[in-house]
Amino acid sequence: MKAWQFIATGAPLELREVPEPVAGPGEVVVEIRAAGLCHTDVGVMTDPLWRAQLATVPLTLGHEVAGVVVEVGPGVDGAELGARVGINPLSATAPGFGRDGGYSHRAVARAEDLVPIPDNVSFAQGAAGTDAGMTSYHAVVVEGQVGAGSKVGIVGLGGLGQLGAAFARAVGAEVYVAEVNEAVWPLARELGAREVVRDVLDLKAFQPDVVVDFAGFGTTAGAMEAVRPGGRVVQVGMGTLEATISINTLILNTVTLVGSKGGTNADIAAVYELFASGTVDPLLTTIGFDEIPDGLERLRVGGVAGRLVAVP
Amino acid sequence: MKAWQFIATGAPLELREVPEPVAGPGEVVVEIRAAGLCHTDVGVMTDPLWRAQLATVPLTLGHEVAGVVVEVGPGVDGAELGARVGINPLSATAPGFGRDGGYSHRAVARAEDLVPIPDNVSFAQGAAGTDAGMTSYHAVVVEGQVGAGSKVGIVGLGGLGQLGAAFARAVGAEVYVAEVNEAVWPLARELGAREVVRDVLDLKAFQPDVVVDFAGFGTTAGAMEAVRPGGRVVQVGMGTLEATISINTLILNTVTLVGSKGGTNADIAAVYELFASGTVDPLLTTIGFDEIPDGLERLRVGGVAGRLVAVP
Repeated sequence: MKAWQFIATGAPLELREVPEPVAGPGEVVVEIRAAGLCHTDVGVMTDPLWRAQLATVPLTLGHEVAGVVVEVGPGVDGAELGARVGINPLSATAPGFGRDGGYSHRAVARAEDLVPIPDNVSFAQGAAGTDAGMTSYHAVVVEGQVGAGSKVGIVGLGGLGQLGAAFARAVGAEVYVAEVNEAVWPLARELGAREVVRDVLDLKAFQPDVVVDFAGFGTTAGAMEAVRPGGRVVQVGMGTLEATISINTLILNTVTLVGSKGGTNADIAAVYELFASGTVDPLLTTIGFDEIPDGLERLRVGGVAGRLVAVP
Repeated sequence: MKAWQFIATGAPLELREVPEPVAGPGEVVVEIRAAGLCHTDVGVMTDPLWRAQLATVPLTLGHEVAGVVVEVGPGVDGAELGARVGINPLSATAPGFGRDGGYSHRAVARAEDLVPIPDNVSFAQGAAGTDAGMTSYHAVVVEGQVGAGSKVGIVGLGGLGQLGAAFARAVGAEVYVAEVNEAVWPLARELGAREVVRDVLDLKAFQPDVVVDFAGFGTTAGAMEAVRPGGRVVQVGMGTLEATISINTLILNTVTLVGSKGGTNADIAAVYELFASGTVDPLLTTIGFDEIPDGLERLRVGGVAGRLVAVP
C-alpha cells in the first residue's frame, strides 16, 4: 500500500510503497478513513528536535487517525471487527510517532488506545477529536476545571483555541477571547464569545476564573495578571520556550499556573459526545490522500481556518 | 499603656504612651501574652511599599498575637472572657496592620479572627502558630496537598521552611531539604529530613511530588525542574519579584505552580493541634517587651534561628 513517509528533516514527505501491516498481540489493524493534519507534523518535518520524537525513520506520519477495525490480534479484548474507532495518539507506540501513522491506508494500534466513534460522528470528526479535540478539551475542562457558570478567557483562536472556546461554551461557561488577529474576531463571536479583545491583559476587565493560553507567545505572564485572584492559568501553547512571570502576582493573587498536554481516552469520548449531540460542530476541511503534502505546506505557511483532514 | 509604634520609614520603633483600647461591636480586647517578631515588620520599617500596607501611621506593630480575652464587645458570639486565643492576622482590621498590634499590652480584634489555644500550648507557641505557623502549614498541607507518603522538597530552611519541614514530617511525608547555608544542615536532619542538598536542582534526584519554595531567590524555575512530572510547586518566598521559567518544562512535565500566602483559622487550629500533641515543637526564643527593637534589628541583620517571640 501507499504511504506518505518522512525521510529526512527539511525534505518533503515521500510517497512510498510499504507492506500491509499485521496486528501483533494486543493490537488491531485499522483501515484509515480519516487522518487529521497537525502543526506538529510541520515541526517534525522541519525541526531536528521534533524529529527525535519519531521511533524510527523513514516513518509514515499522521497521528490523528480514525477508521474501522479490520483485523484483531491475539489477546485483544473489547475491539470488534467493523468497529468505528479513533486512536489516542499519546502512547509510545501510537501511529504517527511510535510507528507508521495515518497518512496511508492501514495502521496498527494497541487495542487500549481505541475510542469508539458514535454513529452520527463522521470519521473526519473522529480523527479531529483525537489529538486536537482531546488536547483542547483536557486543557479547558479537566486542567482548567471549567464548568457551568465559569468565566473563561481563551488566548489564541487557532485550531485548538477554537475547539477550546467551543468546549467551554458547551459546558456552560462564559467565554472571553484574546486574539491579536482581528480577522478571526467574527469567528470568536460565532463560537459564542461574549467579548473579543486584542491583548491578553484586556481580559482582566472580565475577571476570568480561568485563562487557557493556547498561544504561549509571551502571553503567560499576561494571563496570570488577567485571571481573577485565586484563579487558574492553563498553559497549552508553547510559542516561546521561556516566560518571565511575576512572583509577586503569583503569590499575592494566589494564582495557579498549570501546564497541560494531551489527555485521556475519556477526554476523547467526551469530545465525541459533544460532536454527536451537535453541541460542538468543529470547523473541518477535508482533502484527498494525494493532497496531504500540499495541506502540510498550507499549515506551514499559516492561515488555515479549522482542521484539515485527509480522507483517503 | 506603652506601645512600640512605627512612626516613619527608616526610623526605629518609638515607645509611646497610647490609650487602652476598647472593644467595638463584634470585637474583643485581648491582653497580650506573646507577640511574634516577623521579617515583615522589618520590611514595614525599611520599605515604603510595605509601609503602604499599614492602615494608619503611627501604628503599633506586631501581627503574631496571642493572649487572653479581657473584654467582649456588643454582638459577640462565642468568645468568652478569659479565653486563651491567637489572632488570625489576615483580615483588613487585624492588629499590626489594620490597627494597633501586639507590641503592646492590649489589642482589639474581631471575634471571628480568634482561634482558641489548647491548654498545653504556650502563648509563645500560640503567637508563632498564627502567621508563621499558618503560612507554612497552608503552603505545605493545603496548597501542596502533602500527606502520608508524599515526597516533598523544602527549599530554604529559614523560620517558615523549618516549620514547613516539621509539618510535612508530622503528616507522614518524606522530606528533602535544599538549603545553601550548610550551617543549618544539622537542623534539617533533626527535623527528620532524609537528605539535605545545597541546590534546588539537586532535589530532582529524589523525584519529589511537591516542592515548596520558601526562599524564592531565583529558585522557582529550579523547583519546577526538580519536581516529578505531574507534580506541584508551591511558591511562598518572594525573594525576587520575577522569575524566568521554562514553558517547555511546565507543559511537557505538566507541572502545577501555585502561589500560597496566609491561610485560614482552620489552618491555625491544625497547627495548634500539632503543637499540643508534641508532634511539632517549634524552635522559639522568648524576649522581653523592652527587647523588641533589638529583636527586630537581629531579624534585619539575619541569622536568627527559629522565631523570636516577645513575652511582656
